[in-house]
Amino acid sequence: MSGAPPLQRLSLNQITVDQWTLPELVDGCARAGVTTIAPWREKVAEVGLERAGRLIADAGLSVSSLCRGGFFPAAGERERRRAEDDNRRAVEEAASLGTDVLVLVCGAPVGRDLPGARAAIAAGIERLAPHAADHGVRLGIEPLHPMMIGERSAIVTLGEAVDLALRLDAGVVVDAYHVWWDPALERELARAAGRIVGFHVSDWLVPTPDLLQGRGMMGDGIIDLRRIRGLVEAAGYDGPIEVEVINRDLWRMPGDDLVALTCERFAACC
Amino acid sequence: MSGAPPLQRLSLNQITVDQWTLPELVDGCARAGVTTIAPWREKVAEVGLERAGRLIADAGLSVSSLCRGGFFPAAGERERRRAEDDNRRAVEEAASLGTDVLVLVCGAPVGRDLPGARAAIAAGIERLAPHAADHGVRLGIEPLHPMMIGERSAIVTLGEAVDLALRLDAGVVVDAYHVWWDPALERELARAAGRIVGFHVSDWLVPTPDLLQGRGMMGDGIIDLRRIRGLVEAAGYDGPIEVEVINRDLWRMPGDDLVALTCERFAACC
Repeated sequence: MSGAPPLQRLSLNQITVDQWTLPELVDGCARAGVTTIAPWREKVAEVGLERAGRLIADAGLSVSSLCRGGFFPAAGERERRRAEDDNRRAVEEAASLGTDVLVLVCGAPVGRDLPGARAAIAAGIERLAPHAADHGVRLGIEPLHPMMIGERSAIVTLGEAVDLALRLDAGVVVDAYHVWWDPALERELARAAGRIVGFHVSDWLVPTPDLLQGRGMMGDGIIDLRRIRGLVEAAGYDGPIEVEVINRDLWRMPGDDLVALTCERFAACC
Repeated sequence: MSGAPPLQRLSLNQITVDQWTLPELVDGCARAGVTTIAPWREKVAEVGLERAGRLIADAGLSVSSLCRGGFFPAAGERERRRAEDDNRRAVEEAASLGTDVLVLVCGAPVGRDLPGARAAIAAGIERLAPHAADHGVRLGIEPLHPMMIGERSAIVTLGEAVDLALRLDAGVVVDAYHVWWDPALERELARAAGRIVGFHVSDWLVPTPDLLQGRGMMGDGIIDLRRIRGLVEAAGYDGPIEVEVINRDLWRMPGDDLVALTCERFAACC
């Protein structure tokens, strides 16, 4: 079992403090001594890509990843091209913000065609890979919890993400919330060795109040986060640990209080 | 791809029509030409085991399974014994009602100890097996959707259920709702050949309104049920197909209307 991680490994995923704009996040992290963030594209777009990059650089912050590209399965050729263009822009935005990881949320099936969705995802990643390589950006395939399959991702197990990553020379992003239930977790993390490009934490609440926005702050749920961090580190990952809590109740807290709670729980539970 | 299943294969799981008592369910099935049911123990207890058995037999109904035993992980020795006693009674009730299948919902972890929960489940099934064999009852290990891990079951993949079934000489219950998302579904159903003792259907709604009571009527969601039935049948299962829809909105319908809808969708979508 590992001990508490140093605060320098904490990366604050922007959605944890969704009540803040990007400039507010940058200022808040400076106040709290948080050195790394993971912005979301919508929040970057609000202030503009160039200004966002400047704000982050001027504050001396690192960027662990950009959230997100993906959503590959499309209803038709036009939608597919639109998604492809958007993904190419996402790669460019990641590079512009100074991160080498673009998180991929792979997209839901169209209708009932789950095998088709999985094929479209593999094809989409394959098409995007050269553009990512040109920009020095690694594509991080993030398996999502199976309950998110209908809206977010047909890639719902770490095993499948690792299969894709090995086949397409991509990376995987391991979010404890999405994978902790998996009896194959230990085996698949070992298979992922050398390909893990991100590690995210939050907690599984009992009961879970909402399928999408009901994640818990670390320590408020039942995930053995320290055990999972140990497995992730045993697979060779020693990079930033992104705190990505998506919880409506926490968004009602003053941002500074939420960041303080995040830092406290990061040390106590991760 | 298989054609529509005959109505004789439909078994009405009692919770689909939770607005009805057991006597109402028995009468309603007679009116609708449904020949098989799957009662829940609480509803049996409401009328008493003997009377329930008589009602069902007098109506000429078959019983595909009894729902449910399980909940093996316990906070202490006293709770473990209480669960063990209850599971022994569940076996006896199944036999008394004339079914040879007891569905096992295996139980949630105690605290954060997921490996411990899985060990307790294996041990619990092993201890219960001789009693089940004495009564001619097969234990059907049902993997539940991973989103139900915190309240219902640490067994959340078909692969793990099949591993347990092979190791402990038990059966598995395949509920399309719980397993449809799994990229290993085809492979694990093939491994389950000869051990499938039940097949349940409902549908995955987008969005899913509730983690526990938000299942859809067949045809209202995105599960390719006919494909999964084909895989289940290819694994040698040709028994009853239980319709187990757990949906608060449907419980507000008049029971007869809901049964009619169930029969119609069973033919069209399963």
